[in-house]
Amino acid sequence: MKRKILLTDCPDAQGLIAKITYICYKHQLNIIKNDEFVDHTHGRFFMRTELEGRFNDETLLADLDDTLPMGAKRRLVAAGKKRVVILVTKEAHCLGDILIKSYEGALNVEIAAVVGNYDKLEDLANKFGVPFHHVSHEGLSREEHEAQMRAVIDGYTPDYVVLAKYMRVLTPEFVSAYPYRIINIHHSFLPAFIGARPYQQAYDRGVKIIGATAHFVTDDLDEGPIIDQHVIPVDHSFSAEAMAKAGRDVERLVLTRGLRQVLEERVFVHGNKTVVFK
Amino acid sequence: MKRKILLTDCPDAQGLIAKITYICYKHQLNIIKNDEFVDHTHGRFFMRTELEGRFNDETLLADLDDTLPMGAKRRLVAAGKKRVVILVTKEAHCLGDILIKSYEGALNVEIAAVVGNYDKLEDLANKFGVPFHHVSHEGLSREEHEAQMRAVIDGYTPDYVVLAKYMRVLTPEFVSAYPYRIINIHHSFLPAFIGARPYQQAYDRGVKIIGATAHFVTDDLDEGPIIDQHVIPVDHSFSAEAMAKAGRDVERLVLTRGLRQVLEERVFVHGNKTVVFK
Amino acid sequence: MKRKILLTDCPDAQGLIAKITYICYKHQLNIIKNDEFVDHTHGRFFMRTELEGRFNDETLLADLDDTLPMGAKRRLVAAGKKRVVILVTKEAHCLGDILIKSYEGALNVEIAAVVGNYDKLEDLANKFGVPFHHVSHEGLSREEHEAQMRAVIDGYTPDYVVLAKYMRVLTPEFVSAYPYRIINIHHSFLPAFIGARPYQQAYDRGVKIIGATAHFVTDDLDEGPIIDQHVIPVDHSFSAEAMAKAGRDVERLVLTRGLRQVLEERVFVHGNKTVVFK
Amino acid sequence: MKRKILLTDCPDAQGLIAKITYICYKHQLNIIKNDEFVDHTHGRFFMRTELEGRFNDETLLADLDDTLPMGAKRRLVAAGKKRVVILVTKEAHCLGDILIKSYEGALNVEIAAVVGNYDKLEDLANKFGVPFHHVSHEGLSREEHEAQMRAVIDGYTPDYVVLAKYMRVLTPEFVSAYPYRIINIHHSFLPAFIGARPYQQAYDRGVKIIGATAHFVTDDLDEGPIIDQHVIPVDHSFSAEAMAKAGRDVERLVLTRGLRQVLEERVFVHGNKTVVFK
Repeated sequence: MKRKILLTDCPDAQGLIAKITYICYKHQLNIIKNDEFVDHTHGRFFMRTELEGRFNDETLLADLDDTLPMGAKRRLVAAGKKRVVILVTKEAHCLGDILIKSYEGALNVEIAAVVGNYDKLEDLANKFGVPFHHVSHEGLSREEHEAQMRAVIDGYTPDYVVLAKYMRVLTPEFVSAYPYRIINIHHSFLPAFIGARPYQQAYDRGVKIIGATAHFVTDDLDEGPIIDQHVIPVDHSFSAEAMAKAGRDVERLVLTRGLRQVLEERVFVHGNKTVVFK
Repeated sequence: MKRKILLTDCPDAQGLIAKITYICYKHQLNIIKNDEFVDHTHGRFFMRTELEGRFNDETLLADLDDTLPMGAKRRLVAAGKKRVVILVTKEAHCLGDILIKSYEGALNVEIAAVVGNYDKLEDLANKFGVPFHHVSHEGLSREEHEAQMRAVIDGYTPDYVVLAKYMRVLTPEFVSAYPYRIINIHHSFLPAFIGARPYQQAYDRGVKIIGATAHFVTDDLDEGPIIDQHVIPVDHSFSAEAMAKAGRDVERLVLTRGLRQVLEERVFVHGNKTVVFK
Repeated sequence: MKRKILLTDCPDAQGLIAKITYICYKHQLNIIKNDEFVDHTHGRFFMRTELEGRFNDETLLADLDDTLPMGAKRRLVAAGKKRVVILVTKEAHCLGDILIKSYEGALNVEIAAVVGNYDKLEDLANKFGVPFHHVSHEGLSREEHEAQMRAVIDGYTPDYVVLAKYMRVLTPEFVSAYPYRIINIHHSFLPAFIGARPYQQAYDRGVKIIGATAHFVTDDLDEGPIIDQHVIPVDHSFSAEAMAKAGRDVERLVLTRGLRQVLEERVFVHGNKTVVFK
Repeated sequence: MKRKILLTDCPDAQGLIAKITYICYKHQLNIIKNDEFVDHTHGRFFMRTELEGRFNDETLLADLDDTLPMGAKRRLVAAGKKRVVILVTKEAHCLGDILIKSYEGALNVEIAAVVGNYDKLEDLANKFGVPFHHVSHEGLSREEHEAQMRAVIDGYTPDYVVLAKYMRVLTPEFVSAYPYRIINIHHSFLPAFIGARPYQQAYDRGVKIIGATAHFVTDDLDEGPIIDQHVIPVDHSFSAEAMAKAGRDVERLVLTRGLRQVLEERVFVHGNKTVVFK
């Protein structure tokens, strides 16, 4: 008895739930949990099916391919650990949260390595037995630096690359090497305060809430599909520094929560948006 | 083209989603939204299916009855207004919220009548063209008073009876006349502060959050199945009166939200608990 | 024994709390509640003091003027009802919430009149005995329309003008007639989604939270000092229309809450930001 | 220039703010932040004053003693690190959060030692260079075990003892050795679900929110003064185990937040309640 997740993303049509679940039934697979969503605006159907049983992947997928409409995408993935490489700069809180939750067994992830453009967090990674690579950007062009980063990252063949407050802008070339596989935390409730120093922007504008956003990275800075967001209230007594300090708790929460949703195969990308089955 | 909701509540078995959705497909009904839940502990399956199309209720239900396991309950209900009678005492905020949201079109309900054991809210009901009945409890035994209340309520044949801060305890006889059809708002996050004066209890205990609970009424006071709950933070500066004042916003929110879920056929009762498909 | 609120807004200096509270003490006034805030960045001091006792306003203010530093602003205001005129277009929910909360005694306000550029909400205002003025903009230039609006508004000499989903942009002339006395609700968590159709913008961007903002109106559209904000979670299943529907609950909550803070003299304007003592 | 915090807790009287702040002014101390609260029900005054300047503790306190009413308590404490000993059993998440936040500099604390009745968390403590003591309760009477625990704890002379999911009930003797200096996290929103297995109780009751409570430990189990509480929504799909898993994030948040408030001298105990200046 194994557990796998079937992910279906296809043009909407009548009877899809019946057809897909019937195939699962015919294969004597038990549906542990099923979530579906129809985007009526775009005529698109999404379904996530947690299955348990004895799988014959080949015939199951063949049966699905016979049944699903043209343009369907379907994946059958084992429910298990995904491998990630984490990119950092100097701030410890997001990396620390992923390390400690992984250590506690609260996050189903294999942290293959941490790569930093500073060496400040080497000690933290090593505490948890995770290899740390210092790839300094000093004296290098952006392209040279990214080439070195990619060489290190690709050595670990990660499923996902996590930017845990990695504070450098990535080139389109870098991004396209990991399509919808780079997860970033932005320290504002996007699309408010795009770009640099969002807490200073929030302070200057006098907002009464601050937040953070986990999103996939695309070519457009801070414009990729949003996975998760969270906010906390602030008031006049918060300086920009106090906002940044309070915001760290939101950043770590949102990045880890968004990452967990990705790791558990709960996230579909659909245009520049996501469908997230919680 | 009509819209109806199919509600299935039965012992769990393999293939249920496939079988039910296949019947819908065969009847050429479009699934607008589907939610299902399996309670693995108790081996029970729940499904709410929003359907659109041309319905032949009789054959659809017959097909379902042929297919569903022994002990299945299924209902097919039109998506539309439900009729309620609202019971009140003196406090205006919960009644006011239901009236105004109904007026705005934000709540799909027909408010047949308001019945009060005081006449204080007659003016408010009448503003919105809703008949008000004053059924005073003074000089009456509990049984006599409830008999008069029931006579008024039953004259309106309501789908649900809503206790919008109706401050009298109901007898088992009254409750059993409307099984799982009486919705109450209790002014605490149950099971904390059962019974009288929950805000005073909250103040005395020094809690840092207060809340409210919408629940179905059963024989056991404050012990019926919980439909919805919400809380707000408080601190040392809140007297019991200030808590009660702040709590009114939570009470109105929770009662209206819980009522909406019931009106939209999103709520299954399961033992002393609810399954709520949001 | 009366209750008044002393509001002090002045350059920061040593001993201000001591000096101000000593003057109150000397006048045998009891401090019911005191809040103060020093903006260390701008060197500015804010204090709100709820006082009880027998007031000699003239000598109290004279004593304060002798003591406070150059550039100080201080006001002594009676704790009591403020008068507002509410501007509306077609949507009922914000107006409805203010009317019902005022009716319940939950909002310390005198609603002098409602003015609409459509007549749709006349019935709602009249239910609560509030005069309604229909000032149509049709066939009028913006200036002509605003002149008519101002004539109606000014006839009521309101303390504040409340834009309860009044969907027309105001000219600088109109705004300058009521400096920091016009309160608007914007249906996004500003500064996200400035301008038209914020829910459509939110849907298009795929955000996971939506919100609303109460702010003072200034010449810059949607850029005035923020009084209060609140958000709710949404997900992929929300269409733009569903966001708008869910957002109404946030809009009404934030507008009423922000208005209450203003009515209770809890809000200082400071540059383009607010200090709000809750 | 130093920074200290003056904490005043005394019977209410006219002019207290003026008198205390005047003494600070006379001593040429700058008030960075001041919070006060009058409990009008009990006639008690609380004030927390963050001061900056050159302190002569002796004369400052003498001046205060000359001025404050009979029965006043006042303390002048340096703003700085407090020393804690953390007690654990087997669960890592609360200890992990305190360790990582201390490591990041987000919590102003010196973790002197971790003491566990199992040895499971020794590795985690040691990662951060914190000594771990395994004091097994096996084969010992409660009194013998506590005597060993106290010997270890007292060797570190901690300011506070933190129960980070320490799952043994303490005797009144143990509690009285650290009066209002033991901080516990209880995994429910007290007073709901007092006692054992609160998540199972929450599951059985069918609540729609779960929470956690940080409180000072007194002789009455789960009845001590509440410092902080937080909740998250749950629904029918949460088993008791899923609630426990989701609840861990609330537990760690509330314990660390409550501890921070205590460490920053923001908490007064007042009867069986707290005054917390945030």
